Amino acid sequence: MLKEAIYHRAKHNFAYAYDEETVHILMKSKKNDLEQVDLLYGDPYIVKDGSWQFERKEMKRSGSDELFDYWFAAVKPFFRRLRYGFKCTDGKESVFYTERGFYREAPEYSGVYFAFPFLHAVDVFKAPDWVKDTVWYQIFPERFEDGETSLNPKGSKPWGDPPERNSYFGGDFEGVLKRLDYLQELGVNGIYFTPIFQAESNHKYDTTNYLAIDPQFGDKPLLKKLIRECHRRGIKVMLDAVFNHCGRCFAPFQDVLKNKEKSPYKDWFHIHRFPLQEGSVIHYDAFGFEETMPKLNTENPEVRKYLLQTAVYWIKEFDIDAWRLDVANEVSHDFWREFRRTVKSVKPDVFILGEIWHDSMAWLQGDQFDSVMNYRLADSVVDFFAKGTLTVGQFMNDVVHHLHSYHLSVNEAAFNLLGSHDTPRILTVANEDKDRLKLLFVFHLSFIGTPCIYYGDEIGMTGGADPDCRKCMVWNEDEQDRELFHFVKKLIAMRKKIRAFRNEGDFAFLPLHPEVLSYTRKNKTEKLLIILNPAEQAVEVELPPNFRSMKDLWTGHVLESSAALIQRKGFLILYQQQKR
Amino acid sequence: MLKEAIYHRAKHNFAYAYDEETVHILMKSKKNDLEQVDLLYGDPYIVKDGSWQFERKEMKRSGSDELFDYWFAAVKPFFRRLRYGFKCTDGKESVFYTERGFYREAPEYSGVYFAFPFLHAVDVFKAPDWVKDTVWYQIFPERFEDGETSLNPKGSKPWGDPPERNSYFGGDFEGVLKRLDYLQELGVNGIYFTPIFQAESNHKYDTTNYLAIDPQFGDKPLLKKLIRECHRRGIKVMLDAVFNHCGRCFAPFQDVLKNKEKSPYKDWFHIHRFPLQEGSVIHYDAFGFEETMPKLNTENPEVRKYLLQTAVYWIKEFDIDAWRLDVANEVSHDFWREFRRTVKSVKPDVFILGEIWHDSMAWLQGDQFDSVMNYRLADSVVDFFAKGTLTVGQFMNDVVHHLHSYHLSVNEAAFNLLGSHDTPRILTVANEDKDRLKLLFVFHLSFIGTPCIYYGDEIGMTGGADPDCRKCMVWNEDEQDRELFHFVKKLIAMRKKIRAFRNEGDFAFLPLHPEVLSYTRKNKTEKLLIILNPAEQAVEVELPPNFRSMKDLWTGHVLESSAALIQRKGFLILYQQQKR
Repeated sequence: MLKEAIYHRAKHNFAYAYDEETVHILMKSKKNDLEQVDLLYGDPYIVKDGSWQFERKEMKRSGSDELFDYWFAAVKPFFRRLRYGFKCTDGKESVFYTERGFYREAPEYSGVYFAFPFLHAVDVFKAPDWVKDTVWYQIFPERFEDGETSLNPKGSKPWGDPPERNSYFGGDFEGVLKRLDYLQELGVNGIYFTPIFQAESNHKYDTTNYLAIDPQFGDKPLLKKLIRECHRRGIKVMLDAVFNHCGRCFAPFQDVLKNKEKSPYKDWFHIHRFPLQEGSVIHYDAFGFEETMPKLNTENPEVRKYLLQTAVYWIKEFDIDAWRLDVANEVSHDFWREFRRTVKSVKPDVFILGEIWHDSMAWLQGDQFDSVMNYRLADSVVDFFAKGTLTVGQFMNDVVHHLHSYHLSVNEAAFNLLGSHDTPRILTVANEDKDRLKLLFVFHLSFIGTPCIYYGDEIGMTGGADPDCRKCMVWNEDEQDRELFHFVKKLIAMRKKIRAFRNEGDFAFLPLHPEVLSYTRKNKTEKLLIILNPAEQAVEVELPPNFRSMKDLWTGHVLESSAALIQRKGFLILYQQQKR
Repeated sequence: MLKEAIYHRAKHNFAYAYDEETVHILMKSKKNDLEQVDLLYGDPYIVKDGSWQFERKEMKRSGSDELFDYWFAAVKPFFRRLRYGFKCTDGKESVFYTERGFYREAPEYSGVYFAFPFLHAVDVFKAPDWVKDTVWYQIFPERFEDGETSLNPKGSKPWGDPPERNSYFGGDFEGVLKRLDYLQELGVNGIYFTPIFQAESNHKYDTTNYLAIDPQFGDKPLLKKLIRECHRRGIKVMLDAVFNHCGRCFAPFQDVLKNKEKSPYKDWFHIHRFPLQEGSVIHYDAFGFEETMPKLNTENPEVRKYLLQTAVYWIKEFDIDAWRLDVANEVSHDFWREFRRTVKSVKPDVFILGEIWHDSMAWLQGDQFDSVMNYRLADSVVDFFAKGTLTVGQFMNDVVHHLHSYHLSVNEAAFNLLGSHDTPRILTVANEDKDRLKLLFVFHLSFIGTPCIYYGDEIGMTGGADPDCRKCMVWNEDEQDRELFHFVKKLIAMRKKIRAFRNEGDFAFLPLHPEVLSYTRKNKTEKLLIILNPAEQAVEVELPPNFRSMKDLWTGHVLESSAALIQRKGFLILYQQQKR
């Protein structure tokens, strides 16, 4: 037994409260090293003749990646207190793994075991309930639709011209309003707007005024109308808060530029020395080294108050449903804790989404964010489906590793994306292979978490890196890939109709053939078997006995055969209601 | 290379800000598997021709336990942002370990590396500065000294009689005042008082009134005087807050007992149903299953307000320096976060010590406690020195494992104890072997963290489990072990005088002989080599070249020889000032 590979540490991602009564426990061990792992668990205070009284539960091997097996169990401690350990068994021996290390026999003293001392509801990581049922749609307002040409910035180019870094095309709120029918037809029920506040650039990530709408998009009454219209259609609205840094034209920064040491705003920023700039070298912290984006000092109480009031203002006055937080990883944990307390006190089911591209555990413990932009998963999905640079096995390893790095509740609220205004478009990455793109969409819309569609991906828009990925939305149906649109629409409708498709079904890979990706989603009343064949040739797979006579959701036929032929770059979605 | 044993995860105990400019990075690998580990690190935004620009720094093998080697490096990222990875080298190969797994070549894209996105001062774990220089003394007020017999509870027994569970002896504040000279002579500069608030028991862990002093100890003016006197002598005062549960006689609980469902206080507790009790079965959450200690519902805003006001009251009105939090692990993280914000806003350098007996990482991330009662370490120390059930090697493994489970800053503020009112006395555990006890005190007072002495241990008091460990303090000098007293006093004085003894010196084991425990403490100007021989026979050790001609702190002589003879159960403390 390879003890060096056995790992658990209480709390964090290995032991957490899933809900108000359930604790999830995980352990990892070297791949294929252990035959069985039993969880030993009990109340810390139940001791008989000096010996701690525990129960035993066989853990489930919940997945494997390249190096490790993961073991999982859920328990509901009656008094909400828990001590626990692991009995690890391989072909030769059993050892007992505790907080104090390994033992030959189960220790009698409860104190050596791992502790989950008390399950407090208030500490449970919990995203708002509505999030799990949301299919997001990301809109870059400058490029979605021009509804009111009178607002167009000077020098706006004709809609559809190739964009350059500093181009304007005149997209606005009126345009979004005009296209809500389209979004409703597609079936999305959440819109993520990149920033809409007054700013100098077309992307608006350099805020000039956090309390004003950028005039090129419209005004406050129009935004209210837009949000009301979205809500009437059951669509949630998420705005983008850029609190890590401001734009150079933000009045306090302008004041510092003007009044230097004497500015009352000099502590609003991280200034190293004056003058603020010498040639291309800036003497203040910025986003990256971007002189137009001075970093805000979020530890300054005045800045804090200003930003938190901003966050509250748009919730209270405009009834927005969610905040997406730009460059969230570079702002302090302390600030985000106060941010959470503040916005949740105003609207308890507001959704908080952080932009973090790397491991985000430290922000997803219940006290900061409800979710992060899941670029980590996106990279694997894109590599496998779009680029074809991962094998089925490697992709499964990646996904299993990723899922086991977080709470299940975190995975269920994860903001899954395929790309954004910061990455090349998915169809372009896929070398314009629409069959692969379709497989990708099937996976995207049947995976755990909440999927987001970047505007235009559903109609086959292409585009390389910024600015090419920010082209104007194509509204001429002749230029849209309507077949792809209907394909995505059908998947979204399935996801909405069939609960197992979304977050009420366990996700598990079920390898059937080395060339195809196959996985199940199950809940108490339904099961799905999804088989995706990214290969260049058709593959026949044998269906396991308990996955026969299921309905092919795409054709509506029941698949009577014990084998299924999956066309090259084809897929199969099998569905069955289960007896309770 | 055993990749399964290589582990790092950003934040938590593997990557943390040590101070406002320094990030500590750790990695672990299978013991003796790697020859060298290099940290690759740099600013995430410094990219040249698409390739991330990083620096390289060889990591130090900072310790080994039974299964693992630990690797350590400290870096000061200029822009406070950090991406990093590890180059792991064994005899045969080098691999690059990143957040995305292992690579043969160093990846060019910074996004695959681990991230410490921004070092914010406000997120740094930081205990108050004074804590590192504190030697604590724990007083159980009922048993320390009876200064005012008129306050003695009815039926108090004569001072020094064997205690029973419910005995009273009449210890009080006047008694402590009377003995401050004694404590000052011993040299301690922090007193931890177990609870002093009105309660029904002799231990006072069943609070009746959080805002009243228990009349058996004195009154508020007397407590003020006591604290003033302590402060005049440079002694900090820590009180014990029992916020997990109250006593049965706490007025709100009495109200619930009386008025049942109609009580306005019914949500102050976790009540399952009425009646609250049927025979020996209680229908409310308690500490363990102790009916006299109903658990408080700290999520109820009224309870929260009441407890937080209590915490502030004793700081503001009495100028206490620290709160020790009873059963801290069973109260929510959320409550402790608010507790911290609240008390630190009143007195920024107040010290917060949680009672947690197990792995405490989840409470020691900077947002909750400054320290926990280090029972985890105490167990190893007691097993090795007092019980003799661990070998030198096992003990070193335990200590290394423990130290690498936390931030260095956590270890520096750790509340190290040898026992308390909840455990048998250390001399009794050591089978009354005073030589072993002395070795233990040498270790205790030269280790990283802040040591605490349980009243009477310094004069050789004995006692088994509660109530025997709560005997009355012996004041008759003929019955005190005065030699032990002077021994401990001398060690405390050394710790105070020599900075390397306390928390300004690195701690590292330096194995010299399998039978003896030896370790160094070093800072920029001093070094110490401490050798403890717990064996039954003298041991001769060869001193490494750079540890020769050092001063024997006990005798004052310089040790000229290249070897040293350590007597059976003896020790050697060697000291030298180093050139800068």
